[in-house]
Amino acid sequence: MANGGDEVVSNKQVILKEYVSGSPKESNLQVRISSINLKIPQGCNGILVKNLYLSCDPYMITRMKNLQLKQDYVHSFLLGSPISGYGVAKVIESEHPNFKKGDLIWGMTGWEEYSFITATETFFKIQDKDVPLSYYTGILGMPGVSAYAGFYEICSPKKGEYVFVSAASGAVGQLVGQFAKLSGCYVVGSAGSKEKVDLLKNKLGFDEAFNYKEEQDLNAALQRYFPEGIDIYFENVGGKMLDAVLLNMRLRGRIAVCGMISQYNLDQPEGVHYLSNIILKRIRMEGFMVFDHYHLYPKYLEMILPRIRQGKIVYVEDKDEGLESGPAALIGLFAGCNQGKKVVVVAHE
Amino acid sequence: MANGGDEVVSNKQVILKEYVSGSPKESNLQVRISSINLKIPQGCNGILVKNLYLSCDPYMITRMKNLQLKQDYVHSFLLGSPISGYGVAKVIESEHPNFKKGDLIWGMTGWEEYSFITATETFFKIQDKDVPLSYYTGILGMPGVSAYAGFYEICSPKKGEYVFVSAASGAVGQLVGQFAKLSGCYVVGSAGSKEKVDLLKNKLGFDEAFNYKEEQDLNAALQRYFPEGIDIYFENVGGKMLDAVLLNMRLRGRIAVCGMISQYNLDQPEGVHYLSNIILKRIRMEGFMVFDHYHLYPKYLEMILPRIRQGKIVYVEDKDEGLESGPAALIGLFAGCNQGKKVVVVAHE
Ligand SMILES: NC(=O)c1ccc[n+]([C@@H]2O[C@H](COP(=O)([O-])OP(=O)(O)OC[C@H]3O[C@@H](n4cnc5c(N)ncnc54)[C@H](OP(=O)(O)O)[C@@H]3O)[C@@H](O)[C@H]2O)c1
Ligand SMILES: NC(=O)c1ccc[n+]([C@@H]2O[C@H](COP(=O)([O-])OP(=O)(O)OC[C@H]3O[C@@H](n4cnc5c(N)ncnc54)[C@H](OP(=O)(O)O)[C@@H]3O)[C@@H](O)[C@H]2O)c1
Repeated sequence: MANGGDEVVSNKQVILKEYVSGSPKESNLQVRISSINLKIPQGCNGILVKNLYLSCDPYMITRMKNLQLKQDYVHSFLLGSPISGYGVAKVIESEHPNFKKGDLIWGMTGWEEYSFITATETFFKIQDKDVPLSYYTGILGMPGVSAYAGFYEICSPKKGEYVFVSAASGAVGQLVGQFAKLSGCYVVGSAGSKEKVDLLKNKLGFDEAFNYKEEQDLNAALQRYFPEGIDIYFENVGGKMLDAVLLNMRLRGRIAVCGMISQYNLDQPEGVHYLSNIILKRIRMEGFMVFDHYHLYPKYLEMILPRIRQGKIVYVEDKDEGLESGPAALIGLFAGCNQGKKVVVVAHE
Repeated sequence: MANGGDEVVSNKQVILKEYVSGSPKESNLQVRISSINLKIPQGCNGILVKNLYLSCDPYMITRMKNLQLKQDYVHSFLLGSPISGYGVAKVIESEHPNFKKGDLIWGMTGWEEYSFITATETFFKIQDKDVPLSYYTGILGMPGVSAYAGFYEICSPKKGEYVFVSAASGAVGQLVGQFAKLSGCYVVGSAGSKEKVDLLKNKLGFDEAFNYKEEQDLNAALQRYFPEGIDIYFENVGGKMLDAVLLNMRLRGRIAVCGMISQYNLDQPEGVHYLSNIILKRIRMEGFMVFDHYHLYPKYLEMILPRIRQGKIVYVEDKDEGLESGPAALIGLFAGCNQGKKVVVVAHE
């Protein structure tokens, strides 16, 4: 039963049309016009939000597959329903004591214009609004905490160490590189185009950068950029790059395993051959999931906000306008189409 | 110039005849009779020892290869010279203030009857002689410290956790299994024969054990023995076993990478495919070398000696008599010929 004063409006959505198998295609997704009643059903403890910015994140591709995992780490999206992901939204109605109309929040929302949300516990309230709101999908959101926890907690950087970051111009990588510079490290990034390499060197402060697609021999490339070897590898891509890195790690090196995007869409993941370097070089390789580290968020905001305001940390976003652009934006991550953090703009407040 | 009173005696030696390429063969080594003057050259700060027990260790195969590594982690043995390794020896002459005639010691010695040693800093003096002296090549020597440091320092075991050990009946593995039981863990071992599986279950106190050579599908085998998954993997073998383990690890699992014996003699190491589990399951995988952990030796002796005396920890040795048996004993490690810690008995004091 709905409250009095129903207000039914049209609601554009990006839905999962078919499960991804092999490489994801735009046609796995579909934009459709649905409708939504902008009243919260009586007795429901939820919130109604207007979505503003949606985050395109590589992990979402996993949820677009028909997963049959023993463990419950990830769930498939529902066929025919709007997909979900991190986003920035404005509360337009609230029956939840923690949220009120007008609040700006970020968390797990639907790929649609309006969402009715009951799982409000994934949301953070946005206090600082003097920075671009879309940053809460990136530097001030999930990718920010990923870079922060992965680099500081897992890599334990020390001044003067040699740091390598793959997918370095992306949402997470561009931050890791800047954090490495803040820590007094030497940092090199790899990315998939000349433009991204320029970005890394000229805007994001990396000491060096290279286009991995133009290297015949990744081992030789790393030897060139790290004649002394690598102390810290921030792993975003996996596969051949990881193998080349293992050959170039230094004694007591650390590898933070954030992602392995090059493997997500392969039926059979590539083999990594040089793991025995882990023994001789006493390497620690450790995977992490950002969800375990959100308790660091307040501390992270304290560190990052002043640096954003002072221009000491910059953030490159790549925004597409309108939900219609969603499928191409998301699928494009896997072809490296994004230049920085990929954001879909649903509405400007 | 030698001191007065020269005493030249014959000295049987195991020498490296040719570098190993591919699989090692007994014929890479040769037993020859040399001679040695049992007097320390004047002005030399060394010791003369009579070798009693020599340790057969898998890593020695690496030194039998013609290594051309950038980093100086390991050096090749010299062609035509006796190979070296851990052993128990008796000092028969000393010009070094820390050692005196009659001392029993263990450390890096030559595969020969008598050795003249200047690099005395690798040696530990044996204080406790009420236990079999040969134990100082195994449970009370390098493999003991490896198991201790690898299990307690790297794996941080907790009561009730599920532990898997490969090459479980070997020098290191049999101890890891017993330490796991001391820590209140459930422990399963893999080994390469029915006899070894019996040993693990009936003598060494493993909860379960299986013969990996009889399993068509290692993933299925691990699922059978670990329906709840694996918290701790003590890695001795690498390759396919590691891949199967990755599929069966639990959330926040730890993998101590001690060795990867299945890969040592391959020209191209096998590929490991399921590393992305490290992310989802937040796995920590860490390599170690026993050399970094010898500071724990006194603490380890304090822990292990009473347990040996009380019969709470047992140790299975596999002894061959005479230096002549050395080449077969060492090479046999790679075919799993050893049943427990492989020791070559050069002399009984
Ligand atoms: N563990 C966690 O909690 C967590 C949290 C956030 C992100 N992640 C992971 O971190 C990684 C980076 O995420 P992000 O948000 O920063 O993404 P992103 O960098 O903004 O976008 C993905 C980028 O990956 C690169 N890429 C795509 N396919 C590739 C391939 N086959 N080989 C090499 N590079 C490829 C592309 O850049 P190029 O032009 O450089 O190829 C693409 O732009 C991903 O693996 C993601 O899954 C993990
Ligand atoms: N990191 C360090 O500081 C350190 C120190 C000591 C030892 N280690 C390593 O720890 C491991 C165990 O050493 P250990 O002294 O205890 O040796 P061990 O177990 O006494 O002897 C080696 C055993 O490995 C097994 N093996 C041989 N080839 C194999 C293959 N292709 N696949 C699977 N298993 C195979 C055999 O037993 P099965 O019958 O079970 O096949 C063999 O008996 C080795 O990898 C060694 O290099 C490392």
